[in-house]
Amino acid sequence: MSASVITYAGGMVRWEPGTRERLQAAALDLFATRGFEQTTAAEIAQSVGLTERTFFRHFPDKREALFHGQELFVAAFLTGARESQAGAPPLEVVRAALASAATFFADERRPHSRRRQTVIDANPALQERERHKMVGLADTLGDLLRDRGVAEPAATLAARMGTTVFEVSFATWIAAGEERSMAEIQSAVFAELVALAQDR
Amino acid sequence: MSASVITYAGGMVRWEPGTRERLQAAALDLFATRGFEQTTAAEIAQSVGLTERTFFRHFPDKREALFHGQELFVAAFLTGARESQAGAPPLEVVRAALASAATFFADERRPHSRRRQTVIDANPALQERERHKMVGLADTLGDLLRDRGVAEPAATLAARMGTTVFEVSFATWIAAGEERSMAEIQSAVFAELVALAQDR
Repeated sequence: MSASVITYAGGMVRWEPGTRERLQAAALDLFATRGFEQTTAAEIAQSVGLTERTFFRHFPDKREALFHGQELFVAAFLTGARESQAGAPPLEVVRAALASAATFFADERRPHSRRRQTVIDANPALQERERHKMVGLADTLGDLLRDRGVAEPAATLAARMGTTVFEVSFATWIAAGEERSMAEIQSAVFAELVALAQDR
Repeated sequence: MSASVITYAGGMVRWEPGTRERLQAAALDLFATRGFEQTTAAEIAQSVGLTERTFFRHFPDKREALFHGQELFVAAFLTGARESQAGAPPLEVVRAALASAATFFADERRPHSRRRQTVIDANPALQERERHKMVGLADTLGDLLRDRGVAEPAATLAARMGTTVFEVSFATWIAAGEERSMAEIQSAVFAELVALAQDR
């Protein structure tokens, strides 16, 4: 990300490159060590030599320091879905969305994701925020399928199957000792879902 | 429900039969007409000639007047699942759970369910409470499948497919003009889910 200059409160403020990322890393550090409730936005900012005011220029509240970047997460799914062939079956579109999302969960991201999850698991309000994010993703995928001409309830069902496969795969990916890639895990979980539907 | 007498604050208090139900009906009425936020527990109690203290003897807060009875809802699913044949495929157990839950959503309950849903749709905190309920149901169904020897991720996937079919079916069941029974709708949605998994 390059530095940019924005107008702020009538003046000019230099928008330091990487400030947001430093705040996010500091937030995760403090949430993981002291606890989410016990950490203030001012403390996060101070821990990297910034002011509370700077913090609130980047995030509306401390919680969002854990959730910022969500649009990139959703975009990772949509890219794959949009590139699927016209007329592809709904679950193939969903599978393409999952494959594309896997690139967002590169192996080097795994330690960060594990740490973030321990913070979320310790706090019901953060768990709810995370559930809300998944509901939003399912809605977005459903819209995309409906735009492609998929009828109801197929569009909603296929979108929900996609987020279910994602959630189950993500929990596996961050489990202690797990070394398979997100793409590999998702393929296995997806295959299991299809097998379940056929085992009747 | 029969009348019972409980000890309360050192004395004896008559636990009127139907008090809880009257409070629940009054709560839904007020939430639907005035709005959830605009209604207090005292007002709900007063509207049926009771005191706020009586209200709080039945519910921890006004929100729970909308959610009480959840254990019956979950039990309706579990009954069907428990009665499935040993060794039945996971999705057959889920289908049995759905069929049994349908008895909870009898046609005469539909106007009540529609009204309750408009209250929930108008309030993000109630929507979250409802999502939380569905997550709890998926966890309970997953536990039941694991107890039956279903491995992971199949148990979690099958349980989530069950709650997805339920949620999509329920939304259809309460839609304006819909006249099919919950059982009929659930069968159709379930069949659609299976067809989706096979259309690849």
